[in-house]
Amino acid sequence: MLVKEITKEGPVKGVYMILESRRRVAKNGNLFAALRVGDQSGEMPLKVWEISEETFAELQKGRVIKLEAAAKTFNNMLQLEADGRRRFFRVCTEDEYPLTDFLPVSPVPAEKSWPVLDRARAEVELLPYRELLAVFFAQKSFREKFAAAPAALRHHHAYVGGLLEHTAGVVTLCRAALAHYPYLNSDLLLTGALLHDIGKVRSYQTGGGFENTDEGKLLGHLVAGIRMVTEAVNTARRNRGKDFFPPAVELPLIHLLAGHHGLKEWGSPVEPVFLEACLLHHADYMDSQIAKYQEAIRSRPEETGSWTPYNQNLNHAVYLPDLAWEMPAATEEETTGES
Amino acid sequence: MLVKEITKEGPVKGVYMILESRRRVAKNGNLFAALRVGDQSGEMPLKVWEISEETFAELQKGRVIKLEAAAKTFNNMLQLEADGRRRFFRVCTEDEYPLTDFLPVSPVPAEKSWPVLDRARAEVELLPYRELLAVFFAQKSFREKFAAAPAALRHHHAYVGGLLEHTAGVVTLCRAALAHYPYLNSDLLLTGALLHDIGKVRSYQTGGGFENTDEGKLLGHLVAGIRMVTEAVNTARRNRGKDFFPPAVELPLIHLLAGHHGLKEWGSPVEPVFLEACLLHHADYMDSQIAKYQEAIRSRPEETGSWTPYNQNLNHAVYLPDLAWEMPAATEEETTGES
Amino acid sequence: MLVKEITKEGPVKGVYMILESRRRVAKNGNLFAALRVGDQSGEMPLKVWEISEETFAELQKGRVIKLEAAAKTFNNMLQLEADGRRRFFRVCTEDEYPLTDFLPVSPVPAEKSWPVLDRARAEVELLPYRELLAVFFAQKSFREKFAAAPAALRHHHAYVGGLLEHTAGVVTLCRAALAHYPYLNSDLLLTGALLHDIGKVRSYQTGGGFENTDEGKLLGHLVAGIRMVTEAVNTARRNRGKDFFPPAVELPLIHLLAGHHGLKEWGSPVEPVFLEACLLHHADYMDSQIAKYQEAIRSRPEETGSWTPYNQNLNHAVYLPDLAWEMPAATEEETTGES
Amino acid sequence: MLVKEITKEGPVKGVYMILESRRRVAKNGNLFAALRVGDQSGEMPLKVWEISEETFAELQKGRVIKLEAAAKTFNNMLQLEADGRRRFFRVCTEDEYPLTDFLPVSPVPAEKSWPVLDRARAEVELLPYRELLAVFFAQKSFREKFAAAPAALRHHHAYVGGLLEHTAGVVTLCRAALAHYPYLNSDLLLTGALLHDIGKVRSYQTGGGFENTDEGKLLGHLVAGIRMVTEAVNTARRNRGKDFFPPAVELPLIHLLAGHHGLKEWGSPVEPVFLEACLLHHADYMDSQIAKYQEAIRSRPEETGSWTPYNQNLNHAVYLPDLAWEMPAATEEETTGES
Amino acid sequence: MLVKEITKEGPVKGVYMILESRRRVAKNGNLFAALRVGDQSGEMPLKVWEISEETFAELQKGRVIKLEAAAKTFNNMLQLEADGRRRFFRVCTEDEYPLTDFLPVSPVPAEKSWPVLDRARAEVELLPYRELLAVFFAQKSFREKFAAAPAALRHHHAYVGGLLEHTAGVVTLCRAALAHYPYLNSDLLLTGALLHDIGKVRSYQTGGGFENTDEGKLLGHLVAGIRMVTEAVNTARRNRGKDFFPPAVELPLIHLLAGHHGLKEWGSPVEPVFLEACLLHHADYMDSQIAKYQEAIRSRPEETGSWTPYNQNLNHAVYLPDLAWEMPAATEEETTGES
Amino acid sequence: MLVKEITKEGPVKGVYMILESRRRVAKNGNLFAALRVGDQSGEMPLKVWEISEETFAELQKGRVIKLEAAAKTFNNMLQLEADGRRRFFRVCTEDEYPLTDFLPVSPVPAEKSWPVLDRARAEVELLPYRELLAVFFAQKSFREKFAAAPAALRHHHAYVGGLLEHTAGVVTLCRAALAHYPYLNSDLLLTGALLHDIGKVRSYQTGGGFENTDEGKLLGHLVAGIRMVTEAVNTARRNRGKDFFPPAVELPLIHLLAGHHGLKEWGSPVEPVFLEACLLHHADYMDSQIAKYQEAIRSRPEETGSWTPYNQNLNHAVYLPDLAWEMPAATEEETTGES
Repeated sequence: MLVKEITKEGPVKGVYMILESRRRVAKNGNLFAALRVGDQSGEMPLKVWEISEETFAELQKGRVIKLEAAAKTFNNMLQLEADGRRRFFRVCTEDEYPLTDFLPVSPVPAEKSWPVLDRARAEVELLPYRELLAVFFAQKSFREKFAAAPAALRHHHAYVGGLLEHTAGVVTLCRAALAHYPYLNSDLLLTGALLHDIGKVRSYQTGGGFENTDEGKLLGHLVAGIRMVTEAVNTARRNRGKDFFPPAVELPLIHLLAGHHGLKEWGSPVEPVFLEACLLHHADYMDSQIAKYQEAIRSRPEETGSWTPYNQNLNHAVYLPDLAWEMPAATEEETTGES
Repeated sequence: MLVKEITKEGPVKGVYMILESRRRVAKNGNLFAALRVGDQSGEMPLKVWEISEETFAELQKGRVIKLEAAAKTFNNMLQLEADGRRRFFRVCTEDEYPLTDFLPVSPVPAEKSWPVLDRARAEVELLPYRELLAVFFAQKSFREKFAAAPAALRHHHAYVGGLLEHTAGVVTLCRAALAHYPYLNSDLLLTGALLHDIGKVRSYQTGGGFENTDEGKLLGHLVAGIRMVTEAVNTARRNRGKDFFPPAVELPLIHLLAGHHGLKEWGSPVEPVFLEACLLHHADYMDSQIAKYQEAIRSRPEETGSWTPYNQNLNHAVYLPDLAWEMPAATEEETTGES
Repeated sequence: MLVKEITKEGPVKGVYMILESRRRVAKNGNLFAALRVGDQSGEMPLKVWEISEETFAELQKGRVIKLEAAAKTFNNMLQLEADGRRRFFRVCTEDEYPLTDFLPVSPVPAEKSWPVLDRARAEVELLPYRELLAVFFAQKSFREKFAAAPAALRHHHAYVGGLLEHTAGVVTLCRAALAHYPYLNSDLLLTGALLHDIGKVRSYQTGGGFENTDEGKLLGHLVAGIRMVTEAVNTARRNRGKDFFPPAVELPLIHLLAGHHGLKEWGSPVEPVFLEACLLHHADYMDSQIAKYQEAIRSRPEETGSWTPYNQNLNHAVYLPDLAWEMPAATEEETTGES
Repeated sequence: MLVKEITKEGPVKGVYMILESRRRVAKNGNLFAALRVGDQSGEMPLKVWEISEETFAELQKGRVIKLEAAAKTFNNMLQLEADGRRRFFRVCTEDEYPLTDFLPVSPVPAEKSWPVLDRARAEVELLPYRELLAVFFAQKSFREKFAAAPAALRHHHAYVGGLLEHTAGVVTLCRAALAHYPYLNSDLLLTGALLHDIGKVRSYQTGGGFENTDEGKLLGHLVAGIRMVTEAVNTARRNRGKDFFPPAVELPLIHLLAGHHGLKEWGSPVEPVFLEACLLHHADYMDSQIAKYQEAIRSRPEETGSWTPYNQNLNHAVYLPDLAWEMPAATEEETTGES
Repeated sequence: MLVKEITKEGPVKGVYMILESRRRVAKNGNLFAALRVGDQSGEMPLKVWEISEETFAELQKGRVIKLEAAAKTFNNMLQLEADGRRRFFRVCTEDEYPLTDFLPVSPVPAEKSWPVLDRARAEVELLPYRELLAVFFAQKSFREKFAAAPAALRHHHAYVGGLLEHTAGVVTLCRAALAHYPYLNSDLLLTGALLHDIGKVRSYQTGGGFENTDEGKLLGHLVAGIRMVTEAVNTARRNRGKDFFPPAVELPLIHLLAGHHGLKEWGSPVEPVFLEACLLHHADYMDSQIAKYQEAIRSRPEETGSWTPYNQNLNHAVYLPDLAWEMPAATEEETTGES
Repeated sequence: MLVKEITKEGPVKGVYMILESRRRVAKNGNLFAALRVGDQSGEMPLKVWEISEETFAELQKGRVIKLEAAAKTFNNMLQLEADGRRRFFRVCTEDEYPLTDFLPVSPVPAEKSWPVLDRARAEVELLPYRELLAVFFAQKSFREKFAAAPAALRHHHAYVGGLLEHTAGVVTLCRAALAHYPYLNSDLLLTGALLHDIGKVRSYQTGGGFENTDEGKLLGHLVAGIRMVTEAVNTARRNRGKDFFPPAVELPLIHLLAGHHGLKEWGSPVEPVFLEACLLHHADYMDSQIAKYQEAIRSRPEETGSWTPYNQNLNHAVYLPDLAWEMPAATEEETTGES
């Protein structure tokens, strides 16, 4: 049964992800566990009384469990309770249930976004960039992680598939610019657009909600991405010879990653110094801002009129223009033409 | 002869625009005029000795004159000199010489940009917006002023045709977004993109270089544009009835104009509160930033290597990525495959 | 009975304004309404069980109702409850009860502030300004709206009559400056002081507490005011001829409105560029800051000592200097004069 | 002869202030002095060849000298030259020439400002404040220094008498507020207004132009003023007994001095926390801003039209509204009333 | 019994500090007192029913009382209750219990910090500084207050002994700099380091938790310190002659105090202008930042892993690097040396 | 002859570094070269007339040449001139003249700074850090580059040896902190202090003055350093096994490099999140600020009194406290003890 279906006291069976897991000692000295569990429909507290250390160790954050428990009222709220001395759950394997049963998911299906990325990748002609892209985007395991990652932990695209959707948006805006503006190097811009956020694959984790990894907290996704490309370039140089990836080809690409936040105060250690870097920053910024509005619109309560509720990401309510317009009936004055 | 052709002392004949005009009194009590004149190739000082008040009154900034004078050295620099007691110039009529002979001109021809605007205008279906756009863009005199205006006095698109080129860029980016993102109202966004900068027609003047009018200095182009649309809407209401342009149709459009600078500190009295307003701001911002890079690239000295000189608009030099790449010849180590 | 008199369970009769009105569906599927009602003495929740759609539609935010209900305890708090199947209220007409019975009111009576404004208006001699002021301040309906409006929704003068009190304060400071400083144009400064905030009449609404209208949220009071004056000037030009209100008379006045917030980051699309505009900004700023201190002092709890509680508008507690001083009794040392 | 009268080579006699004095060694090893001298009409370089150490020691910055020298052309500019082996100057005593012959002077005569201060002082009734004010404003030597000081070194009131003029402006604005707003303590506010800038008497020096003293550079005028009042209060306590000046009377006054810059980033170590402190800051801020506009207007070149040149203190040109308006002649259309 | 030992209803006896004391009137008209009391182990509410005005007057914030009361449950929380008609407490004298029984205390014992200060003081050779330091640090009462004060009310060193610990840290960093860098005046730097925060002795109070005094709120510790030194210097001049403490010796020292916050926006009315002032600011800043990390580490819950919880002073969680490293066992590949 | 010895027209022989080299075409169509050459004593223009393309190609910026030319006056200034048709120079090899003959050099000799670094390195016990440090600091070529680099291009330590001097300063401050504060990991902090700025070896170049390399301009020294360590760690993992350098050992070190600028707006993509990172940032910041004061003091003109001239790096003049103090002679009043 889904979390949102648990509306009164009684037995509960269901499959949930563990979102939080804390070890507690009761006044009587017994160990108990204070968890939060959830699925895509919501989340709830779960208390497990008289739990053993061994059982507690199984209940790690991010795990998916098949649970049998009881809904009980505590402090006027329903919570789940289980007796730790009996077997009340089974840890599911990763294959058993898709992550997307337990986490919010992008409104844009992956099948719509991958072709945008793959077409861009196919258009890159410069061999060192082509092979570099293949190191990442030709690997199934990378594609899976990339498609599962959010584009941010909060604020915008904070859902499974967010990174893929965002990258497709950035690539699309870059392609529109390539068609309109002169002086742009298409290989450099498209490679940069595809790789600009790959560090998020290593700096975010999705087990038990979206969070930073230690690498994410200590280095940030921007430095993580720079290190991923640096390592891949070094491997290419070892395999293909030093001249295969000369500095004049490597440095502008690293600059695209380093500069894509646009300003130092937004986390870019260097600010864009060439046209493609400027453009990539703006495409990135624009797509993320648009996503905030889209999410405010998508998540508004049904009864909303012209304004969504206050939105924390944007720090204001969002207006929904309604231009429903009809030609007004002519009034006498107008038909006679006198004014 | 062009200004850049005046390289040594001697007689000079040519057609120039007056860029500055100052009345001076010499130590001997005589009146003289200190002018700067120029054409597209450059500018030079012009001193007119013993000038009368009447003659000085003719030499107003912004006028185009056919001049006969002499180049002389003063303080190691060449300047033009003329004797105010003889007739040395003729004021040309506005038709005689195109403005573009004396001012920098957009690198994008108007014939390329107008179709972008006109196609967008043709797609707007909502009648009040359609007619509002026609008030401006269906008038020959407006089109002429619009096509002559720069998009800024400094920093970006500061040349004849800049406003037209910039508006086409913004419309193009908005159109790309319309194709990619849901939730957008095309009529509202395109009308806003077309009108967002029309205040510049009233707040900039091009006579004798680009400058603010009094309206530009006292109100700014953003308020000027709001007032132009406000007045046109009022006229429409008087002509077509009050309900022809209801507030729910007018206010979001005015918001697009008011909010297109994005932030209060950038001159928007309100910040964007709906998706189209957010998008218009980003398209406007992106196009203006790209133009700064383009101009830095276009105006770089010929001998430039990978870096343009320091660019004041961007506050940095601009890099010119050169990805000229050739497959390196295989070295022995590589061919044998040992590493 | 006033809200503050409802201190225990039992029947309640009174006249209240509806401050919030939400439609809810109970677990049993029945409709109920969750309202907040209030008067000048305070506010309370009102739950109406088993309400019909028709009845709910009558209970709109901002309406004043004569109510019969019951006070009951819920979650340790008193709330009002009514049975929607019986007739428990009557909607009052606008004339029946003054707005000021339900909203906070300026501590300065209108009779003290209007003469300040009217005297300033009487002193303006320049005909176009005089007639412009009359368009607004000679109209009874405008005067009523102006006198009812607050000067802000939060922070300062957030009460009925606030706009009137604030405008009187600004006019008073401007008049003091006119008496002390040279170079000031009295007509321009007084007209600007009187009109600087008129946009608030259109951008604020007072029904059910103080809030922004859509125009307030989409354009802000500053642009609303600019548009009101622009429209009035256009009407004057149509009626009196174009030269009746030349740009040199109109533009500085619009500038006063546009620049009165002083800085772009405070919402002025242009910053003051002449003396009267600088002065008006400072008078406006000074009066609003003083009001914050006055309100912190006025609303302090009775038992306050030298410091009010922390004040959110000012982000600090306010000190109340107490200089009660008495000549200290002379000590021996002092009387002998040895030190 | 005044500096501005020295327009060609030849002998020069006049009385000038030394504005700069540098000791130099010529290529031949001889000592010479590179000075700048000036009067109210302008300033000029003065070179003294073959000067002795003793003579150079007399030519200190800030001294006024009666000079006999020769104007000669050097690098196309006129400069004064003198032979240090002959006696070419006499140092004037301080009484001989008023400072105001050599420095810019307030446009408001001291006779107009002193009564404003003295009337305010006379109204202060609280004895400790009254006596404190007398420590400063009843002393002839203090009044002389106060009346000679500028209110700032740059930006506003940077002339002899500026401090007096500025203090009178601040007192005037405070008095207007006292008449309009409730809750104000007149003794505290007027004492604070009179004393707020007294530190400038110790932190500025006027010899040879306006400059900071070491105390001004190391502590600033705000701390200097706090220390002056602290010392005077301590003296009062020693003379009149500790209770004569209790902390509840002293601390709010010191707070007025410490907080009058309004914000930490503007140099106030604490920000205003009571009404009088808020008001004093705004009066101070308003008067100084107005002065910048007045000075831009006063110092504009004669031929200025509606705009002064760019003004560095304000970072913009200043507009001069010209409302000269005449009732337009009625046109036919208007007289017939058809529109 | 300690506060943390009160875990169930029943009688309670203990010694506590009053942390808050509010006079309340019950619905029945009787006076009651709502207090908070605490010791080093925690704090709790205490309600005293039917209290007389006389008794309430004894229960002032900051007092230490020997209490007999009862723990009762209210709103699911334990609180203490007492009957004001019986004698239930005794006010302790200041000597009876050390402050440190009721307030958090520095982790660094005073015996470790005082020698750092006293050694530095002993090294100062310049007589006026030596005697000035003695005015403060040779006085037992000053030493007691100094050793009891926190270094801040929040953020860092907010505990008894914090000022002493912080001053020792600053002195230590300054001493390290004296050993490494040239151009430093040891007497000036050490005197400044010792005195830089003495104003906190007058601007903080510790009765009933750490708070600002009126002087702290109105002037701040920086101005308080400047005034303390100013007064001491004046006394020295009266006693030892004016030349004993010449301005060239006094002003740099006052500058060290005035500038030690480094930036105006951080409360320094002047920013450092010489080397010792720059250094003192950085030592002060560095020590206070380090203290925030130390406190986040010290106060982390036991079960913390690599990250402390979110820390409000730092606005982030703190990482605890764990470099426990062991030489990895050699794998076959490595031992054979092939890669 | 040194540049400063060239004081009059005549033949000149000397060894100079080329600081600028521009190719010019004269009006007669001939090629000439406009160079600047210099040594530690100063710099001068050098014009080479009628130069061939081949000769010009030899005169690259950064080269050291043995020159024979003539000093001539041009525009009242001396410049060097040479005839490009004759052989007038010889390019010196890198060994011939030390770089320090032509560039400013640290006032602290390398022999004083290296032991500070090497002692710190010797104390690092953790094997992966020890070996990592050896990759850099045990290589002669790295040590040479490190010892030649400046610590900044402007502002502070902008001279040969600056990086070495600065690193020694940072290490010294870190060591002082290690002795005083608990909770610090010495291996981590010292390794971070030694490596924090190594990116400057790759991002600065010293040929012909100090400048950024392309890598410096495109990535900045901070990212360059991260990449250098990343590459070295990867190499270590390939050589010693993946577990030799586990993430828990690598990531905190990279964080120290990434965070050492302290704030995002100062170029750190992540801000310090643990104690050692906080400390390293403050030591780095403190040392660089102290260096600015030292340089202002060191480079002051001889005749300076208490204040250096305005210093651009600090944006203020620097005060030089002079505490020369003598016990004042006792006055009669003092000796008699009456006050």
